[in-house]
Amino acid sequence: MNEFELIRKYFERPAKGALVGVGDDCALVRPNAGLELAMTTDTLVEGRHFAAGAEARSLGHKALAVNLSDLAAMGAAPRWALLSLALPSADEAWLAAFSGGFFALAERHGIELVGGDTVRSPLLTIGITAIGEVPAGVTMYRGSARPGDDVWVSGELGGAALALKHPEVAEAAERLHRPEPRVELGERLRGIARAAIDVSDGFAADLGHILQRSGVCAVVYYEQLPRAAALARFEASVQQACVLGGGDDYELCFTADPERRKEVEALSRELGLRLSLVGSIQKGEPRLHLYGEGGRAIEVPAGFDHFR
Amino acid sequence: MNEFELIRKYFERPAKGALVGVGDDCALVRPNAGLELAMTTDTLVEGRHFAAGAEARSLGHKALAVNLSDLAAMGAAPRWALLSLALPSADEAWLAAFSGGFFALAERHGIELVGGDTVRSPLLTIGITAIGEVPAGVTMYRGSARPGDDVWVSGELGGAALALKHPEVAEAAERLHRPEPRVELGERLRGIARAAIDVSDGFAADLGHILQRSGVCAVVYYEQLPRAAALARFEASVQQACVLGGGDDYELCFTADPERRKEVEALSRELGLRLSLVGSIQKGEPRLHLYGEGGRAIEVPAGFDHFR
Repeated sequence: MNEFELIRKYFERPAKGALVGVGDDCALVRPNAGLELAMTTDTLVEGRHFAAGAEARSLGHKALAVNLSDLAAMGAAPRWALLSLALPSADEAWLAAFSGGFFALAERHGIELVGGDTVRSPLLTIGITAIGEVPAGVTMYRGSARPGDDVWVSGELGGAALALKHPEVAEAAERLHRPEPRVELGERLRGIARAAIDVSDGFAADLGHILQRSGVCAVVYYEQLPRAAALARFEASVQQACVLGGGDDYELCFTADPERRKEVEALSRELGLRLSLVGSIQKGEPRLHLYGEGGRAIEVPAGFDHFR
Repeated sequence: MNEFELIRKYFERPAKGALVGVGDDCALVRPNAGLELAMTTDTLVEGRHFAAGAEARSLGHKALAVNLSDLAAMGAAPRWALLSLALPSADEAWLAAFSGGFFALAERHGIELVGGDTVRSPLLTIGITAIGEVPAGVTMYRGSARPGDDVWVSGELGGAALALKHPEVAEAAERLHRPEPRVELGERLRGIARAAIDVSDGFAADLGHILQRSGVCAVVYYEQLPRAAALARFEASVQQACVLGGGDDYELCFTADPERRKEVEALSRELGLRLSLVGSIQKGEPRLHLYGEGGRAIEVPAGFDHFR
């Protein structure tokens, strides 16, 4: 099976929203009038972001999920994706499973695969660019947190990190391999939240990006951080490392004026998604002040850094 | 130097057209009203598309050039790019040279780097997504060639392929490592050309894509194909392999109604760029009929296929 047959068989579907999808020099799409475009790209590398031999359907899901999560953090509605696959070989079973996982998630969130590139490489590398739309003026930036804002976190933290240490914990493994991007939450937070980020490098590091960009500090209460249920049977130090420093959860961390608490709580009920108030933004040097039981200060772990 | 410092130092520049550039969850941009968006992505892998140790400034140029070439083939004006870099290490000299080559070409064509991703990988892999704008109704598709159309080729063919066989030929090496995407030509062909493609896999293969998508055949005269001057001192078989089968030239191959010849010729003079009339589109099964001196038929080489 050559490159062009391979693309056609597994990735070329009739264009829906797109004027031209996979198969020309470029995809061609028509953006909705008056909206702004949010664009993001994320790459997963074998041996770095996933183990060699990782299950292909989950990979297809996750590679798209991490990009949808970035769109969610800006409040953007997913529209179009481009997929770049560097593959050791054209393995049909792998391609069928990978594209199955990719399209199942894509269809759920209304994002259309409009283009891509397949190349041969000894190292499986998956790059996705996702593009969404957002009305002007309601985008949540990392730099728009203000002193006095509440700090919120969606869902629960630490599950994905636990799975790295204890792959036998099934519910944690599900979080690591098939994260659920908070797309609907992101869109619904437009006009309610001020700043937002997705938790990909770890809660402490990602909130740190908001603090840095906004020029503010934060006080967060460790006991209020929502944690994966599966963490309960592990010791406190493991829990803490996973909740504060563990990446890959793809929850949203956002700030909002305290006057919006009722709206956030109503949204939580409506979406059936836990939204936890974990602290507040304050004036001061960009730093996370973290307090545990009895008000004792907790040292904040550094975030994930690909080149350290 | 950690990942975030590295991004800031070499890739974060003040946003110009973009509302938000590098450094948030997504880039945020405002498209021009009423235009359609052309999107493309291309990945270069070490050992496959370039040799280990390839000169970084040229790589930065070429990785962007191949994407600009796809935009040119659709007649789109370049606007925004996202860069995904998988790097063995954070080598500052390499990053300075790579980003220098990238930005020099980007600025020449008015494309803004608005986002990206850097990850660590044993294998240097460069992925770029480029997005451009094009007015509705004038886009050149692969599938819009019609019987009776002229077939045109810009610039000259075979230089890049010659450099792969004879790296000592300096002018050919320049073509291979620093291809010049035909961005202005692409934009100016709007409303003149019907179908277009960029010559990345080889003239025969790329024209073949037009024929396949358009459901037509083509008659092309080998002697009319423009060839790199450096080819003249090599034997005929080398010339033919490079001109017909060599990829990486990034010229445009396009079709146009014969009534537009004067406009095409005027455009050639205005841009100072050779545009050669090499054959015509005809009714028939998608196939390239190629004729040499004295009308003898020439066998058409198959195109480049990453998985063959």
